[in-house]
Amino acid sequence: MAFPTDLEIANAVKPKKITKIAKKLGIDKNDLELYGKGKAKIPLSYIDPEKIKKNKLVLVTAITPTPAGEGKTTVSIGLVDGLNKIGKQATAVIREPSLGPVFGIKGGAAGGGYSQVIPMEDINLHFTGDFNAIEKANNLLSAAIDNNIQSRTKSIGIDPSTVTWKRVMDMNDRSLREVIVGVGDKNGVVRQDGFNITPASEIMAILCLSENFSDLKERLGKIYVADKFDGTPVFAKDLKIVGAMAILLKEAIKPNLVQTLEGNPALVHGGPFASIAQGTNTIIATKMGLSLSEYVVTEAGFGADLGAEKFLNIKCVAGGLSPDAAVVVATVRALRHHGGAHKNDLQKPDLEKLKAGFPNLEKHIENVQKFNITPVVAINYFPNDSDEEIEFIINECEKKGIKAVVSKAFAEGGKGAEDLARAVAEVADANETNFTPLYNHSAGIQEKIETIAKEIYGADKVNFLAKAKRVMKDLEKKGFDKLPVCMVKTPKSLSDDDNKLGRPSGFSVTVRDFEIASGAGFIIPMLGDAMRMPGLPSTPAAEGMDIDDNGVITGLS
Amino acid sequence: MAFPTDLEIANAVKPKKITKIAKKLGIDKNDLELYGKGKAKIPLSYIDPEKIKKNKLVLVTAITPTPAGEGKTTVSIGLVDGLNKIGKQATAVIREPSLGPVFGIKGGAAGGGYSQVIPMEDINLHFTGDFNAIEKANNLLSAAIDNNIQSRTKSIGIDPSTVTWKRVMDMNDRSLREVIVGVGDKNGVVRQDGFNITPASEIMAILCLSENFSDLKERLGKIYVADKFDGTPVFAKDLKIVGAMAILLKEAIKPNLVQTLEGNPALVHGGPFASIAQGTNTIIATKMGLSLSEYVVTEAGFGADLGAEKFLNIKCVAGGLSPDAAVVVATVRALRHHGGAHKNDLQKPDLEKLKAGFPNLEKHIENVQKFNITPVVAINYFPNDSDEEIEFIINECEKKGIKAVVSKAFAEGGKGAEDLARAVAEVADANETNFTPLYNHSAGIQEKIETIAKEIYGADKVNFLAKAKRVMKDLEKKGFDKLPVCMVKTPKSLSDDDNKLGRPSGFSVTVRDFEIASGAGFIIPMLGDAMRMPGLPSTPAAEGMDIDDNGVITGLS
Repeated sequence: MAFPTDLEIANAVKPKKITKIAKKLGIDKNDLELYGKGKAKIPLSYIDPEKIKKNKLVLVTAITPTPAGEGKTTVSIGLVDGLNKIGKQATAVIREPSLGPVFGIKGGAAGGGYSQVIPMEDINLHFTGDFNAIEKANNLLSAAIDNNIQSRTKSIGIDPSTVTWKRVMDMNDRSLREVIVGVGDKNGVVRQDGFNITPASEIMAILCLSENFSDLKERLGKIYVADKFDGTPVFAKDLKIVGAMAILLKEAIKPNLVQTLEGNPALVHGGPFASIAQGTNTIIATKMGLSLSEYVVTEAGFGADLGAEKFLNIKCVAGGLSPDAAVVVATVRALRHHGGAHKNDLQKPDLEKLKAGFPNLEKHIENVQKFNITPVVAINYFPNDSDEEIEFIINECEKKGIKAVVSKAFAEGGKGAEDLARAVAEVADANETNFTPLYNHSAGIQEKIETIAKEIYGADKVNFLAKAKRVMKDLEKKGFDKLPVCMVKTPKSLSDDDNKLGRPSGFSVTVRDFEIASGAGFIIPMLGDAMRMPGLPSTPAAEGMDIDDNGVITGLS
Repeated sequence: MAFPTDLEIANAVKPKKITKIAKKLGIDKNDLELYGKGKAKIPLSYIDPEKIKKNKLVLVTAITPTPAGEGKTTVSIGLVDGLNKIGKQATAVIREPSLGPVFGIKGGAAGGGYSQVIPMEDINLHFTGDFNAIEKANNLLSAAIDNNIQSRTKSIGIDPSTVTWKRVMDMNDRSLREVIVGVGDKNGVVRQDGFNITPASEIMAILCLSENFSDLKERLGKIYVADKFDGTPVFAKDLKIVGAMAILLKEAIKPNLVQTLEGNPALVHGGPFASIAQGTNTIIATKMGLSLSEYVVTEAGFGADLGAEKFLNIKCVAGGLSPDAAVVVATVRALRHHGGAHKNDLQKPDLEKLKAGFPNLEKHIENVQKFNITPVVAINYFPNDSDEEIEFIINECEKKGIKAVVSKAFAEGGKGAEDLARAVAEVADANETNFTPLYNHSAGIQEKIETIAKEIYGADKVNFLAKAKRVMKDLEKKGFDKLPVCMVKTPKSLSDDDNKLGRPSGFSVTVRDFEIASGAGFIIPMLGDAMRMPGLPSTPAAEGMDIDDNGVITGLS
């Protein structure tokens, strides 16, 4: 019999009442705002600064992933279930899926196998409406900009050719990357615009980095949108639209409580896409988790060169957070890939290819160590992994003083992650990590980019195209140079070139352009071809989906 | 002391638990899906065909409104509270507000004064996510169309210049009316597209006209989107995307339960904009209301020439519904306006202007009677209405055998609508109405349009511009001519010219173009300048809005 699909596994479990999950965390059911069956929002009043200091934060990151992903969410959820199995009180704090990948190529982001969060279908679809709220706040600002530009009486003098603020839509839709708006009679002023995918909205980053509602409003007001004809910058607050944007986000700021298949708590809040966005969950959810349980397991997207770097240099600094341990997820399959195995041979044991690919894992381990955090390697087990391959990884890690542990959370749930849970708890409880960010936010823009590229990616050199140089100067002139950088880069390689597998060396990376998120508080250097609006593949996942008259869904993963 | 704002009144009421409201309707709390505090979705299993036949349906419509609206929702809610006060079991079934007007000029749509549905703020913002679900289903189809056009291997041969399917966004944003998509390298094929506001999406109309989930899917598949290069039509089902679209709508299809300020049940489901869309609530919500209570008070947007005409000719025919009474809402202020009173004098008693404007009300009364339904006139009372003016209306109606009743629901809630409730119940209970649609769906397109224009608007003649003639022929050729018509026309006049007030005569109307909604099942003739994507005014309502750190909102109405 074939292994059941994620959806079949999820549907076979009878979920606990969400009020019961909340009760375990000490949340009164009258404080909970329910959203359909099995989802609820928690008011911010449960955040407790004393508990945040005391409790343990575990960051889950990964090696450079293959397109299917290496199961970081699966391991995170398995680890939470594993920690609870060995008697530790743990909560998962993960990100909300975007509809783009759900209907595109990657699938949702609610874990897999016996390590999932549920209700999986709702989480992967509109969930509690957070993405929609972000989208509307983003696009209300766009409408206000264009409305002001065409107004004869209220115009504040925005130069239409300088508008950097883009519209967003939570969809993989390449045709919207670059558009001309305002076409036609009395339809405003014609100008070039573009749509990013909603997780790449600065509003998403602001939601992820805000400490509370007043911080959120403050950041919304500081969003840079364009220049006036006289060259002075225009911010969202100049359009008198910040109150309305904040109203749209009044519920989205509250973390969402769901549960793992084993009935342990999970907070799902904030957006994905660590390649093209900040891509970590919200500071509020992380702090909520730490306020309510002894261990918080959180994840950052893609490899440690992307999600973890941003989580540590941007989010932890902004929120005063300090991880007590990190998990680097690896799969034997992906290491074979990095060692040069052909796509068709990835499922076959191949010790030589694995050995050749191992330096990729090595580099991600070193990357975590550069922040003074002790990593544990989680080998996300697949049935075709050979004993020799796994032993090789364990032994090589041991030589570096790092523990590598097999996780069978996909096939076995928390029981399959007990060893991993023990290893992680040991590191976290030892209180030996001493988190240090990689760079000082006040360093120059170029210096910050070079630090990340050389230290984390392993590059020799950073090239700046002419446009990038020009924009960088302008950002300096506008006083944005003291902000951290949020790199846009392919997740498929440590470099900015998809084809450079393993642990590349002797390469340079190229910054072609910048975007600015002055409200969220970071500069966005754009490397290589990475796009902030994905496209659909020639056969989108959406084509295989259906729902019958009883509401039973098939094809969603 | 000034009369409190809608928001202040709404916030001063302690709402009943929504589970208690549901219990009154006979709904088990375990069947209810809660959405935050005070909102819930009801499963379709509560629809009961026997009860639908037995219970009474009351349609609320209006005279030609001034821009502020004449309080149709306020009267509808007051009437429900009034009916409950006189011992009848009644439920309001109204439409969901769109964010466009909320942030634009008109304000939300949750009633006013002491006749509101609550939670007013949530209803006016994202509510339970239905509009977002519709928007995503609409835009997924757009992404699939553009993805197919640019595909080298999977193209089905769509001619990009023939795509009629537009994207949507729930925002007043004139810059998106006409856009060029696919600009830039590898971003698909450049073509002209446009955004309608979400309530004008065919998906909204499909949701409103579907009887159940399988009907919904059937209709989604039949959406016409473009032609192939060989001239044959392309439908949504040809893009293999119908299952995914249906999945996005799995919650949106369920009606939303909230309550009036007096704790009576209200179902809020389906979209507004009877001027540019179908604009009535959903058949499912209407039938749910009729399954759960003796009287259902529902409303259709703008004057009887728009919402009521569409409600009766499209929705009632599609759903096999037959109203037992109709209420025509009028205000003294608006009748003064129709009689030629200057904008600055609208608040002043002026019997002569009122008399001059009365024929507008007369025409809307006649329009309702053309469907063999007995109307009751509700005079939505304002403090500056003079006794003479009100008496004139009552007497003139009496001459026609029509009851006109003052409603003070705005200032007094249900108590102020008891007289109206008695008058309406009397008509509904008399079982004398015998609903007959105005035209046969199988008549020709031109004939159907002419019937509505002459019978309902009072026009002498319908002109068809060259483009409209061409498209009409094409619709006939494609076999869409047996569908009913859903007119796009200004709500400000019985004609297609905003400036023709009162009861104009001796005029013609002009059809400039058509859209087609083959899934929803209607043809959309477009008259005059009416747009399917509104713009923001020079000072949007959004500018006056704020929310403080405690979540207290100001400026929302």
